[in-house]
Amino acid sequence: MRNPAPTLYPIHDLLAERWSPRSISARPVEPAKLKSLLEAARWAPSSSNMQPWRFLVATRDHPEQWQRLFDCMVEWNQGWVRASPVLILSVAALLTPEGKQNHHAHHDTGLATQNLLLQAVAEGLVAHAMAGFNRGLARETLSIPEAYDPVAMIAVGYPAEASDLPEAYREGEARPRERRALNETVFGAGFGLPSPLLQEGAG
Amino acid sequence: MRNPAPTLYPIHDLLAERWSPRSISARPVEPAKLKSLLEAARWAPSSSNMQPWRFLVATRDHPEQWQRLFDCMVEWNQGWVRASPVLILSVAALLTPEGKQNHHAHHDTGLATQNLLLQAVAEGLVAHAMAGFNRGLARETLSIPEAYDPVAMIAVGYPAEASDLPEAYREGEARPRERRALNETVFGAGFGLPSPLLQEGAG
Repeated sequence: MRNPAPTLYPIHDLLAERWSPRSISARPVEPAKLKSLLEAARWAPSSSNMQPWRFLVATRDHPEQWQRLFDCMVEWNQGWVRASPVLILSVAALLTPEGKQNHHAHHDTGLATQNLLLQAVAEGLVAHAMAGFNRGLARETLSIPEAYDPVAMIAVGYPAEASDLPEAYREGEARPRERRALNETVFGAGFGLPSPLLQEGAG
Repeated sequence: MRNPAPTLYPIHDLLAERWSPRSISARPVEPAKLKSLLEAARWAPSSSNMQPWRFLVATRDHPEQWQRLFDCMVEWNQGWVRASPVLILSVAALLTPEGKQNHHAHHDTGLATQNLLLQAVAEGLVAHAMAGFNRGLARETLSIPEAYDPVAMIAVGYPAEASDLPEAYREGEARPRERRALNETVFGAGFGLPSPLLQEGAG
């Protein structure tokens, strides 16, 4: 199933076609494709090339590993994630090699994660990132050291039909995609100031 | 100038071709292209669709606005950013609509920013994100409210030749692109545990 972003200005297909469905097939994902997702993440930019991202990956081929990630998710997400053959937890390294706080740890992990989500589109897969998991439990059961922060849980798999989902999730799947208007997101050279770019009419 | 990532596993061209050059042409960027960059950012995913990202955009068409962003940069970055016709500051909203801390504010701003950087590639532009700016000064001169955090400065423009850069920056432009090995970035279902995915040979 496709659900391209209803954009006001044209954007690349790879970006427009990315979305976060809940209907994910139980069909296994080829290891080569998963490696490409992680490789895409690896080539993201980062502050001083520190690459603060780490990814914990579990597939159904190792059910006890998959279960360990699954158990960290909140119940609402467990309800639809149940079918996903691949779960990934992103983790951010909070410190620089010198032991100072890396202010861009979460941000740069986001840069890498977006690459991962987009490579999934390129592979004909879907990938849905979630904040809804128990971070404390993840830290404990996945042995995340103190200097690292569990960030996002990501379900990956082949797309399925909304009708395959438990009923509670089906309506969300058909809901139109929405974002805040561009002029509430983009400002000029001062917070809240109108951007000349958006005021100057035709683009 | 191109500088594709030397990937171990294949990734989509749009992701492989993205890099962070310092040689950026003074040639102005068409407003339509800039709007597409910001539109791409707009369609990134975010926790509860809160879209914590904001972007302050300044072009050379409004030199006093451009200067305000430029002045926030550290001297080393000013040295090469001088030519860039477009500067963008990403800002993260730290609070949820209910006034709680949004733990994913920086992360989700990173997701949106990666879309922006990649749309630049699609437009034949280059975009280079930087942590090297004075966040306190940015907050002050750009009136960033307390509940928001200045995150990254982004220079955007058409690519130029490394030989156009001041000498101090030329060597970096030709340096091979490097990342940590995948098995130091990707683990199994426990921090630091080897990933079966990477151990199972051919992919």
